[in-house]
Amino acid sequence: MNMTNSASTPLDRLAVQIAPELEQVSTLIRQRMASRHAPRIPEVTAHLVEAGGKRLRPMLTLSAARMLGYQGDDHVKLAATVEFIHTATLLHDDVVDESRQRRGRPTANLLWDNKSSVLVGDYLFARSFQLMTETGSLRVLDILANASATIAEGEVLQLTAAQDLRTDEDIYLQVVRGKTAALFSAATEVGGVIAGAPEDQVRALFDYGDALGIAFQIVDDLLDYGGVTATIGKNTGDDFRERKLTLPVIKAIAAGDATERAFWTRTIEAGDQRDGDLEQALAIMARHGAMQAARADALDWVGRAKAALATLPANPIRDLLDELADFVVARVA
Amino acid sequence: MNMTNSASTPLDRLAVQIAPELEQVSTLIRQRMASRHAPRIPEVTAHLVEAGGKRLRPMLTLSAARMLGYQGDDHVKLAATVEFIHTATLLHDDVVDESRQRRGRPTANLLWDNKSSVLVGDYLFARSFQLMTETGSLRVLDILANASATIAEGEVLQLTAAQDLRTDEDIYLQVVRGKTAALFSAATEVGGVIAGAPEDQVRALFDYGDALGIAFQIVDDLLDYGGVTATIGKNTGDDFRERKLTLPVIKAIAAGDATERAFWTRTIEAGDQRDGDLEQALAIMARHGAMQAARADALDWVGRAKAALATLPANPIRDLLDELADFVVARVA
Repeated sequence: MNMTNSASTPLDRLAVQIAPELEQVSTLIRQRMASRHAPRIPEVTAHLVEAGGKRLRPMLTLSAARMLGYQGDDHVKLAATVEFIHTATLLHDDVVDESRQRRGRPTANLLWDNKSSVLVGDYLFARSFQLMTETGSLRVLDILANASATIAEGEVLQLTAAQDLRTDEDIYLQVVRGKTAALFSAATEVGGVIAGAPEDQVRALFDYGDALGIAFQIVDDLLDYGGVTATIGKNTGDDFRERKLTLPVIKAIAAGDATERAFWTRTIEAGDQRDGDLEQALAIMARHGAMQAARADALDWVGRAKAALATLPANPIRDLLDELADFVVARVA
Repeated sequence: MNMTNSASTPLDRLAVQIAPELEQVSTLIRQRMASRHAPRIPEVTAHLVEAGGKRLRPMLTLSAARMLGYQGDDHVKLAATVEFIHTATLLHDDVVDESRQRRGRPTANLLWDNKSSVLVGDYLFARSFQLMTETGSLRVLDILANASATIAEGEVLQLTAAQDLRTDEDIYLQVVRGKTAALFSAATEVGGVIAGAPEDQVRALFDYGDALGIAFQIVDDLLDYGGVTATIGKNTGDDFRERKLTLPVIKAIAAGDATERAFWTRTIEAGDQRDGDLEQALAIMARHGAMQAARADALDWVGRAKAALATLPANPIRDLLDELADFVVARVA
């Protein structure tokens, strides 16, 4: 990784590069999450939006548009749109997963209730559609409506694929494209569309976002098991407890023998989990090099992201997006 | 009510009048509720969409467009859009209200789980935005995005207004506009917009849908207490048990004395409900003529709906929409 300033991440430096627009996005989000009639809405939204999220997705939209020379301000609306869709998804995810913590703080469904999370999520979805409609670009609307459908479809697929040992890498990829990559690729693609970029550049932006999103989610799933070194920490093993089949587990199951299969059948399919099972799961995965193999897949997707990016015109923002791709996997170095 | 055929309702006759397009809407809904990857989605949706709903909202869109001479087929897409938004709302409502029955059948959240209802609802919202985007009309997108935001805002407002005796008729009207009238008025308005109707006619269609939706919801809320005669049946009193403040209760509270107020504070605010409380609530409302007063309000909104309609060009469909407005309140004759 080529870091010009070892004290900061590529994400930090990207934020500096597009600071004024990022500030506009924050202002717009604060304005649009308001509700004249229902104060519960901004309360719940502020808890999540202002909880120190990294604003990665809106940064992708702003970067894509700026990199390709966009001069207007619709990219700010689209960046806020993307963040609203993301926030709505988080609210609903936490209800679905019955989560109690996100980013080290209690979730909205815990602080208020599931009802508020469901309905405020719906409100943010609607707000996102209002915002994107204001750009007047039917192509942008088409991209974001399709992304929203893919996200929901991926979440439903994840629901039915959990607890099912037949879930293979193809199904995993579909789930990951839905839950993560669809919004990454829509975020970069609409940046190019709003900038009026040629078709091959728009396609390259889509490919970058898609591959970056897949790499990002594989790494997230690795981190859930403590990363490649599988160090058990406070937040380790949530996916195991929720019986989600993520890439390292899928790889371990495919490589395992009958005894191991019985272990996975009991813990994941039957949900009969006992003390020491998480450690046992990690040992099985380590035996098959499942962590390293999943990390290699993530690196492969990073390579694809960078290759797509390399077809775009040279630009300081392009260089930062390139470093960002490396950075995503560096989280599990 | 001027019924040409006493055996059928105005809704039945409207369905006959627009039968071919209504069939196209059903076909489109079946096509678009499919999912290549997640079979859970059409299972859940079919349970609700094909459960014999009256398709009132899509009929409003088809009627408005046809009445004003529309010749294309985008009104079919918009009618399906409106039904998808409605269905998504029902799925999320049943989660929020923890309902176990709808239209006499077990709810999706009971048959599957809350997770499926939340995520399939999200999928249908996204599908609705895809459908409306296909019409290519930014004005239609604007109307339906605004309606979606108003619906979610109304639901959140209802959540916070429940259990709060300060909820007055103004707040009730805001909740009702959100939960019901916003989609009715959007349904009629987009029919006019897609038909290219002049502004005053589009406005009249909006006013008709708005007033019809408000009357419809007041009547629904009356029926929840057994109608004007307050006959207690199997499904009577859900709103009372859920501590929702609807129009007859609000009117009774405003007219009541200190003893009655203590009753409402205990049952609605504190949620301490005992055997005989529903009967007591009905007796208090009857004492103040709250049922009759709420019905009079509904009739007033019907009058406004019919007045708006009367400004539109004469047409057999217009006559049926006029009868439909009477019919809505005839449910609590």
